[in-house]
Amino acid sequence: MSASGVEAPDRLLIRDLAQLATPSRRSAPLRRAELGAVDVIENAYVLCEQGRINHVGKMRDLGPLTGEVAELDGRGLSAIPGLVDCHTHACFAGDRVGEFALRASGASYEELHAAGGGILSTVRATRDADEARLDTALERHVAWMLRSGTTTFEAKSGYGLDRETELAQLRVVRRAGGIPTWLGAHAVPPEFTDAGPAAYVDFLLAEVLPDAAQVAEAADIFLERGAFGVEEARRYLQACQNVGLALRLHGDQFTEAGAIPLAIELGARSVDHLESTGPGGIAALAASDVVGVLLPASALFLGRPMPPGRALADAGAAVALATDFNPGSAFCESLPLICSLACTQLGLSPEEALTACTVNAAHVLERAHRKGRLAPGYDADIVLIGADDWRHLAYHLGGPVVHTVLQGGRISWNSRA
Amino acid sequence: MSASGVEAPDRLLIRDLAQLATPSRRSAPLRRAELGAVDVIENAYVLCEQGRINHVGKMRDLGPLTGEVAELDGRGLSAIPGLVDCHTHACFAGDRVGEFALRASGASYEELHAAGGGILSTVRATRDADEARLDTALERHVAWMLRSGTTTFEAKSGYGLDRETELAQLRVVRRAGGIPTWLGAHAVPPEFTDAGPAAYVDFLLAEVLPDAAQVAEAADIFLERGAFGVEEARRYLQACQNVGLALRLHGDQFTEAGAIPLAIELGARSVDHLESTGPGGIAALAASDVVGVLLPASALFLGRPMPPGRALADAGAAVALATDFNPGSAFCESLPLICSLACTQLGLSPEEALTACTVNAAHVLERAHRKGRLAPGYDADIVLIGADDWRHLAYHLGGPVVHTVLQGGRISWNSRA
Repeated sequence: MSASGVEAPDRLLIRDLAQLATPSRRSAPLRRAELGAVDVIENAYVLCEQGRINHVGKMRDLGPLTGEVAELDGRGLSAIPGLVDCHTHACFAGDRVGEFALRASGASYEELHAAGGGILSTVRATRDADEARLDTALERHVAWMLRSGTTTFEAKSGYGLDRETELAQLRVVRRAGGIPTWLGAHAVPPEFTDAGPAAYVDFLLAEVLPDAAQVAEAADIFLERGAFGVEEARRYLQACQNVGLALRLHGDQFTEAGAIPLAIELGARSVDHLESTGPGGIAALAASDVVGVLLPASALFLGRPMPPGRALADAGAAVALATDFNPGSAFCESLPLICSLACTQLGLSPEEALTACTVNAAHVLERAHRKGRLAPGYDADIVLIGADDWRHLAYHLGGPVVHTVLQGGRISWNSRA
Repeated sequence: MSASGVEAPDRLLIRDLAQLATPSRRSAPLRRAELGAVDVIENAYVLCEQGRINHVGKMRDLGPLTGEVAELDGRGLSAIPGLVDCHTHACFAGDRVGEFALRASGASYEELHAAGGGILSTVRATRDADEARLDTALERHVAWMLRSGTTTFEAKSGYGLDRETELAQLRVVRRAGGIPTWLGAHAVPPEFTDAGPAAYVDFLLAEVLPDAAQVAEAADIFLERGAFGVEEARRYLQACQNVGLALRLHGDQFTEAGAIPLAIELGARSVDHLESTGPGGIAALAASDVVGVLLPASALFLGRPMPPGRALADAGAAVALATDFNPGSAFCESLPLICSLACTQLGLSPEEALTACTVNAAHVLERAHRKGRLAPGYDADIVLIGADDWRHLAYHLGGPVVHTVLQGGRISWNSRA
C-alpha cells in the first residue's frame, strides 16, 4: 500500500531509509555546540500517526505493527525535517527581471531607480493586482517552495504600503498556509514622500495596525539609513508589541543603524540580514536571546558581502537561515541552495545549516515545539533527500536534491509525480 | 497532436511562445559587442523539420502549414537554445560529501588530504567501479544535466590515471552521448609519486594516447604548481595535437603558471578556470583566438575568488561558461545556476551569459555550426523556460526555470512528465 493522494493515512511507516538526520536538542534557539548537534540514524524508519511523528529509529529495532499502516519505501533516500523558511517576501505581483538585467550590466543604483526599479516598482504591481491575483501569485511561489522542501513559511506584507493592500497581503499569506508578518514599515510610499517617515508611521499605527494585528503574527520594519530610523522603529515596534505581535527587524543590511540594540531592548524574536554587522553587534547579539537570521541569497544576488555567519556562531549567537525570497534582491525560494551558500560562503557546517533552517527558524516563528525536528510529537513534516547521505542537501549545489515532501504525514510533493 | 515519446516527429511547430531568444551572430567565438547580441522575438514560433530548425519568427508571420505537423503549446514559455556544457568531469564513481562537510567545518587542505580527500579519492572509487557501474553513474548525472537544460555536454577522463580506467571513462562518455576529452594529465597517480610527473607523462603518451585518441576529441591537462608544469604540458599537448586531438588546458586556477601563453602558442581551443588571471593574461587572451572558459561554481564551492569575467569580456576575450561538474570542487550540473552566478558574481549581462553557454561553448567543442543558436539549419535542441521572459534563466536563482527540453526535435525532458 502506498501513501499518496489528498488524504493523510492515519498511520504511515517510512521504512528502509538510508539515513535519517534531525537536530538533536529540543530547547530552542540552539547555539554553540548545540547548533551543530545532529543525530544521524543509518537504515532508519519514521512512524507517523494522525499527522504527527510517533517514533523514529533503526529498522532493526522496529517491532511488528498491528492494524492498517501505509508504507513508503525509503531505500536510497535520507529523511530530514521539513524546512522552515522564516523570512520571505513571497506575496507580490510581477517580477523585476529587467532590474536584474540592468544591475548585471553594471547599472548604478541611481540608474535602476531612474528606470523605475526598486521596492516601489513591486508596490505599484502589487497595488494593481486584485486579491485573487495575489492568491494565484503566492500559490505559484508556494509550489516552488514546496518542491524545494519548505513545509513551513513566513511571508511579509510590505508591498502595499497602504491600508487596503497591506491587509490584503496578510490575508493572502494566511490563506496560502503561511505565517503572516506585517511589514508596513518596509519603505515610505510616494504619498508620504513629503510628510516623511514619522508621518507614515503615524498613519500605519492609526489606520492599519488595528486590523493588521488581527491577521499577522509579527511585525517587522526596515531599519536602515534612508528608510526608518531607530526612533521611528521603536515607536512602531512598541505599538505592535502592545497589541500582541511578535517583533522582527531588518537590520545591518547596508549600515549598522542600531537594529541590534533595539531588537535586544524590545525582546524581538530576530534581527535579519546582518551583512554589515561588526564585532560589537556580534557580541551583543550573542549575549541576547534574539536570533540572527542570515540571508545569503540576497548578499549573492546583490553582489554584496556575506553576513558574518561563522563569527556569529562562534560568538554563541543563535542563527537561522532563510531565503529572503523577493523579486528585487533575492529571486530565490530554495533553502537547499541557502544551505549550500551557508556551507561555502558563511563557514557553517551542514549540521549547523540544517539546524538553522529547521529548529532555529521554527523558533523565530514560535513553532519550535511542533516544527523542525524528526522526533515523537512533532508534526510529520518530512523531506526525503534523493541521496543516501542527507548532507547532499547542501553538497549538491543547485541540484534536484528533494525527492519527496510530506506535510502532516501526507505526501505533498514528489519528484516523480 | 502533441509531441512526445521516443520518436521525433518529422515536423514540429512550437507555437505561441511568449519569447524566443537566441544569440544573433553566427561566427564563433563571439566577443565584445557580439557577446551580448541576443535577438528576442515576442510571440514567436519555432518550426522544426527532421530534427533541425527550419524556421523561427513571429506568430503573425507564420503562414499556413500543409501536411502533418505536430504542435507544442508555448504559451507562457520562452525558448532558448539548448545549453552547452563545455567543461565537466561528470564521469566518476562515488561522491565527496564528507570532504565537503569537512571543508565547510574549516578543515585545512592538509586535513582534507589526511582524511583521504582530494582527486585521488575519486580515482580510487572510479578505478574500483566496473565499466557498467560507470555507465549507470554517468547516466544519472546526464539526467540531472538534461533537466537543467543541458543538451550537449563534454566530459573528461582523469579519474583513472591508468590505461584501463582512462579508456573506460572515454568510452562511457561517448556511450552516454557526451563529447569525451582525455584528461590523463589530471594528477600524478600514486604509482608515479616517486618517478614524478615527467615519467607519468612518458607513460601516458606511450601507453594511453594511441587508444585514447581513437575515442576522445580533445586532450586536456591540469597545468598548476604541484601538478604539471609548462614543459610537461607542452610535450603532452603537442603529442596529442600530432594525433589530431583538439587542445584544452586547466589554467590559472590557483596560480598563473603559464597556461595562457602555452594555450596561445599551441592554438588550444580553450584555457579554463582563470580565477588567478591578472591583467597580462587577460590582455594576452583577448588578443588570441583561445576561449576563456569560466567556472564560477567551483570558485563558489571552494570559497575562492571569482574569475575576472567582466574584465575579460571588456578586454575583448571570447568567454564561455561551464559547470565544471565534479565531485570535489563543484558538485553542480546546473547551467542556469551558472548563469545566475555569471550575472551576480562575474558582471556579465544575461545576454552575455546566454552566448557564453551556447554559441561560445559550442565553439570550444567544435559544434558551433550546429549547436547553440535557434536559427535555420541548427539542430532542434531547444530549452523552454517556464516564464514569459527568457532572462528568468539567470534571474530565478536556484529555481525550477526549465520547463521542457528538446533534443533533435524530440522532447527529452518535461517538468510535468
